[in-house]
Amino acid sequence: MATTNLEKFLEYVENNQEHYVQRLREAVAIPSVSSDAAYREHVFKMGEYLGKLCESLGISYEARDVGTQELDGKTLQLPPIILGTYGNDPNKPTILVYGHYDVQPALLEDGWSSDPWVLTEDSSGRLMGRGATDDKGPVLTWFNIIEAHQKLGLELPVNLKMCFEGMEESGSEGLDELIQQEADKYFKGVDAVCISDNYWLGITKPCLTYGLRGISYFKLTVSGPGKDLHSGVFGGTVYEPMTDLTYLMGKLVKPDGTLLVPGIYDNVAALTEEEKAIYGKIDFKMHELHAAVESDTSIYSSESETLMYRWRYPSLSLHGIEGAFSAPGAKTVIPAKVHGKFSIRSVPNMDPERITELVTKYLNDEFAKLGTKNKMTVECIHGAKPWVSNPDHWNYVAAAKATETVFNVKPDLTREGGSIPVTLTFQDALNTNVLLLPVGRGDDGAHSINEKLDKSNLVSGTKLLGAYLYEVAAIERK
Amino acid sequence: MATTNLEKFLEYVENNQEHYVQRLREAVAIPSVSSDAAYREHVFKMGEYLGKLCESLGISYEARDVGTQELDGKTLQLPPIILGTYGNDPNKPTILVYGHYDVQPALLEDGWSSDPWVLTEDSSGRLMGRGATDDKGPVLTWFNIIEAHQKLGLELPVNLKMCFEGMEESGSEGLDELIQQEADKYFKGVDAVCISDNYWLGITKPCLTYGLRGISYFKLTVSGPGKDLHSGVFGGTVYEPMTDLTYLMGKLVKPDGTLLVPGIYDNVAALTEEEKAIYGKIDFKMHELHAAVESDTSIYSSESETLMYRWRYPSLSLHGIEGAFSAPGAKTVIPAKVHGKFSIRSVPNMDPERITELVTKYLNDEFAKLGTKNKMTVECIHGAKPWVSNPDHWNYVAAAKATETVFNVKPDLTREGGSIPVTLTFQDALNTNVLLLPVGRGDDGAHSINEKLDKSNLVSGTKLLGAYLYEVAAIERK
Ligand SMILES: [Zn+2]
Ligand SMILES: [Zn+2]
Ligand SMILES: [Zn+2]
Ligand SMILES: [Zn+2]
Repeated sequence: MATTNLEKFLEYVENNQEHYVQRLREAVAIPSVSSDAAYREHVFKMGEYLGKLCESLGISYEARDVGTQELDGKTLQLPPIILGTYGNDPNKPTILVYGHYDVQPALLEDGWSSDPWVLTEDSSGRLMGRGATDDKGPVLTWFNIIEAHQKLGLELPVNLKMCFEGMEESGSEGLDELIQQEADKYFKGVDAVCISDNYWLGITKPCLTYGLRGISYFKLTVSGPGKDLHSGVFGGTVYEPMTDLTYLMGKLVKPDGTLLVPGIYDNVAALTEEEKAIYGKIDFKMHELHAAVESDTSIYSSESETLMYRWRYPSLSLHGIEGAFSAPGAKTVIPAKVHGKFSIRSVPNMDPERITELVTKYLNDEFAKLGTKNKMTVECIHGAKPWVSNPDHWNYVAAAKATETVFNVKPDLTREGGSIPVTLTFQDALNTNVLLLPVGRGDDGAHSINEKLDKSNLVSGTKLLGAYLYEVAAIERK
Repeated sequence: MATTNLEKFLEYVENNQEHYVQRLREAVAIPSVSSDAAYREHVFKMGEYLGKLCESLGISYEARDVGTQELDGKTLQLPPIILGTYGNDPNKPTILVYGHYDVQPALLEDGWSSDPWVLTEDSSGRLMGRGATDDKGPVLTWFNIIEAHQKLGLELPVNLKMCFEGMEESGSEGLDELIQQEADKYFKGVDAVCISDNYWLGITKPCLTYGLRGISYFKLTVSGPGKDLHSGVFGGTVYEPMTDLTYLMGKLVKPDGTLLVPGIYDNVAALTEEEKAIYGKIDFKMHELHAAVESDTSIYSSESETLMYRWRYPSLSLHGIEGAFSAPGAKTVIPAKVHGKFSIRSVPNMDPERITELVTKYLNDEFAKLGTKNKMTVECIHGAKPWVSNPDHWNYVAAAKATETVFNVKPDLTREGGSIPVTLTFQDALNTNVLLLPVGRGDDGAHSINEKLDKSNLVSGTKLLGAYLYEVAAIERK
């Protein structure tokens, strides 16, 4: 039997593992923290690193300047968005891949077991370092794939467009505008989008991710006195903002997670039989949840319910209070102005504007009942829509086939409880299907200390994303 | 008409104002901050300063070592308690005076209009500096009085015992034990106690203070997950400690200040007609409250009710939450373990142990109703009993007469909403009447930036405390 191009590619990747580890090590060594002005030069260096990779592999690219931002009282240049194009064959489909080259902050003192900027392999093959899994490992995978094909003298089965930003961990500043502007220019002709910036649900089974919850983050402010007061002198004689705020925050959600805002469930999509069937098949056990949260304080006892309430039902979390006493010890203060922070994780077909309307009306109604002289305001300070895709689309079918090729297993169809706003931006601006195809595992610890990517995931992920391109090229796309 | 000793004294004080200002300037220049290990040497220097004053005025004294404390991870020597004795005539009454020579922290950067450690007089005669009114000014007054008598060749009309501590702003460590130990030794024979460490209610009318509220400070802890969680991943699937804590805190007090803990009002002393009459006479206007809190968000519209709810009814304040998100901005955290801080200002005849019992039972009952898997604990981390004295006692009558002599006005009989625990310790350990006789005004800003003592109050306060000693010596004491 003749060896196919895909087989040659898979074999090549298998034989070049150390080369990919070394490339990831170079990338991790650049501390491209986007949230800290002091690290901004390193974010630029990481952009240049990708630019050089493009040059060396013959990828035509542009490092797009997207302007400035205000950070820590300074005006800072935003890191460029790397737009790369590889191949322009009208007979091939065009796949847009997205990723980010900035990372979360990391300090050895935070408790890392080795220098976060030195990729360190342990005896189990875990490659530890900031950005290893989020998102430098997955981003480099695309370059590894192109390089492998060049070394093998093979054509890539698709045209590839790349969009790699350097501000994902800090609000993706400049990205949405660029996508809107370039929808009919640079992004014209894109057949589907593939994003590798999330994780398997667990640690063994690959998955395709077809949905994300949205978020509406609220700041609820109650104010009264002109300055903080001493409770000995004024306690009992003035309306205290904390009393009103605490009461209002206590009216938002029940201990069992039920939202108490009237009408909030009205637009939640009904659970269909098809969707229900997906949940029954997912490889997930309650003990994994308990291990992840380090306690057995789960609300639901079944796996299906737990995943549904993580992915397809809304939740409301009370994050804390700004302006009140928050240090250890005892302070007898009556805080003058307090801001309660809470957010609603929203699901299809909830709409952020409607959520803000309902929350505002409810809190105003409840506040009016209090008969206090304090003042109350509520605002949504950050909103992102929920997203759900069609997992029967050819983009997903191709990814499922590729998963079977590489892992010999059908992938789970998962959603996530958090939000990746760019997903929805691409879907709406380019009017294409968007697929989330993760490389890393659920225990990789993105954003935590000791972030890691298993070497086996780096290798199988390179294979998977390459195989996906072959399946995309082969499948009937309609 | 012959000039009395009191008249000579009052005239001497009037003529030596600048000398008293200069003495206060020396004391303010020593930054005797007790809460910060880095300043501890200055607290000792301030103790030595008082020791030297004792020596120069022939006051026999002891700088009593009261052991060590743990602060900022260091074992620190506690500043000494200065015990001074001036006069030992069995035919004179013995008055114990208490004050403190430590001060609150102060930094020019906090917004002081001049160096807090340089006593600065403005055009209105305000002497600005940390400790000017709390409590260096009042403490030095006693030395000024003795010095005046020596310069005039007069005997003091009473025996004076002094107890000046250097840890009042940091929990009075070592003081209670010393008072208990010395009750039948150093403090033996004390006829009454006079403390000058509080303030007039307003800015024009002198007062005698005969009551203080107590405090029971609670820490209410709810915990669930083993670590902080991301609300995107886990929101909706685990019991969130903030939900339970916020609910419980919302069940403690109504916006109008009514405590919701069952049984909490059972031991509040009934309002007598005599007591009610006192409130009607007090020089206090609602606009003063509104000016002090910088808003018109008062609960009561009448002066009497406002003062009663400040002084003789309990209040409950929610101070804040430790362990939750408290910074500006948005963070999507599910805090794993949160501590709600609240305190009850207690009044006669409420008892701290009973308060803790009632609060604990109530919170446990309410928590049980929640049906959550989280864990809850509540503890009283600091308790002080309320105190009320008999304003008809000769000690108060003498102080009232002295006030009329110096100010030509009858003093208001006030209480305070805060607590000064040593008041009750002296009363109980020495079995004597305790009087609070303030020198400063209600707007002195103890503990705030730009703390000040008016020069006129420094002078009239020296006169007042001196005149008080004459009245104590002259009055029928039974
Ligand atoms: Zn990421
Ligand atoms: Zn990330
Ligand atoms: Zn004081
Ligand atoms: Zn003080």
